[in-house]
Amino acid sequence: MEKAVIILSGGMDSTTLLYDIINQGYETYALSINYGQKHSKELECAAKTCQKLNVPHKIIDLSVLGKELLCNNALTSEKIEIPHGNYNEGNMKLTVVPNRNMILLSLAIGYAITLGAKKVFYAAHAGDHAIYPDCRHEFIEALKKAVSLADWESIKLEAPYLTLDKGDIAIKGKELGVDYSLTWSCYEGSDKACGMCGTCRERMEAFKKAKITDPLGYKD
Amino acid sequence: MEKAVIILSGGMDSTTLLYDIINQGYETYALSINYGQKHSKELECAAKTCQKLNVPHKIIDLSVLGKELLCNNALTSEKIEIPHGNYNEGNMKLTVVPNRNMILLSLAIGYAITLGAKKVFYAAHAGDHAIYPDCRHEFIEALKKAVSLADWESIKLEAPYLTLDKGDIAIKGKELGVDYSLTWSCYEGSDKACGMCGTCRERMEAFKKAKITDPLGYKD
Repeated sequence: MEKAVIILSGGMDSTTLLYDIINQGYETYALSINYGQKHSKELECAAKTCQKLNVPHKIIDLSVLGKELLCNNALTSEKIEIPHGNYNEGNMKLTVVPNRNMILLSLAIGYAITLGAKKVFYAAHAGDHAIYPDCRHEFIEALKKAVSLADWESIKLEAPYLTLDKGDIAIKGKELGVDYSLTWSCYEGSDKACGMCGTCRERMEAFKKAKITDPLGYKD
Repeated sequence: MEKAVIILSGGMDSTTLLYDIINQGYETYALSINYGQKHSKELECAAKTCQKLNVPHKIIDLSVLGKELLCNNALTSEKIEIPHGNYNEGNMKLTVVPNRNMILLSLAIGYAITLGAKKVFYAAHAGDHAIYPDCRHEFIEALKKAVSLADWESIKLEAPYLTLDKGDIAIKGKELGVDYSLTWSCYEGSDKACGMCGTCRERMEAFKKAKITDPLGYKD
């Protein structure tokens, strides 16, 4: 079996990808990073999914990053509120965590080299690029090139959902039997998802497109 | 004044570069990462140099990385001894920390975006490439490209010592008046440098080339 590392946030995209690569036969190692997000609901979901699927899982606490280096955004700063609205609205830029993807991927590559895995998967998708600079195709292509040179033996960065939107991912998840009750998307950490932030809205549309019912409850 | 971030290990290369960019007029922010090195002598030197030069300095404790993700090497694992000998010897590969440069650089880029700095400096040099895959020109060129796309406004990765060897760096440091008593190179963390490991040997040759006396004492 070929070893692979996956970056697992505990949201619906990376959880679907986890099911997907297990289904493809990879010996899978999941990595979740606490970079100082305001809440840990996603990470708890990631842990439950890995337990359910019997996948080795590391959660690494780098919460100091959100406090010291990656502040000034709504996901890590207590002083900035999560904006409500769709992703195309200006204020959603507050949810950009500086250079998050490169940081997470560089850690995953380091872990892969330690494990002797030659592939690292992550679930960037077509809906992401609008406001996140580090979800752009050009960025990912450049990073793939760098990653291929990071060790003497080439490591491959795999982003198979790059041309899919979140609805397509939900359709895939439906086929794969993903347990979406063990995923969390909302930027807020309340008991129920807010239904108002960009990621809630996108998730609701995705479930509608896939014609499945979201097992998570939303606030009224 | 233009803002810049520098990755400062506390070794002689990055310390020289720090003096160099201050001399060039940058408003400089130094970043040091504890990734789980066996000793913190370099980081203590980094702190003293920044205090001396009145440079804002962050030391971020990510020592969990060495324990959890980046093990199996002599710099972070208690189980693997620091090899003695020159860098061109096979056993020196034990000192490769997987993907270290990409990890450090990705964090520095995130910090630069938070600060509004457009340049990140690091002191990779020509002597490094022989055993470290992530000191190769091709790797750094690919990473520069990715970094330039990591934010909406382009960030520039600067590695001005890439064509210099450690002796050239020491010559530069002599001109700049670098206080090399506040730098540490040895992979071991004893009171005196071991004089036996790859980095000690390279340092001794560098001082010889620059015709300066190393203020650090070595074991007999």
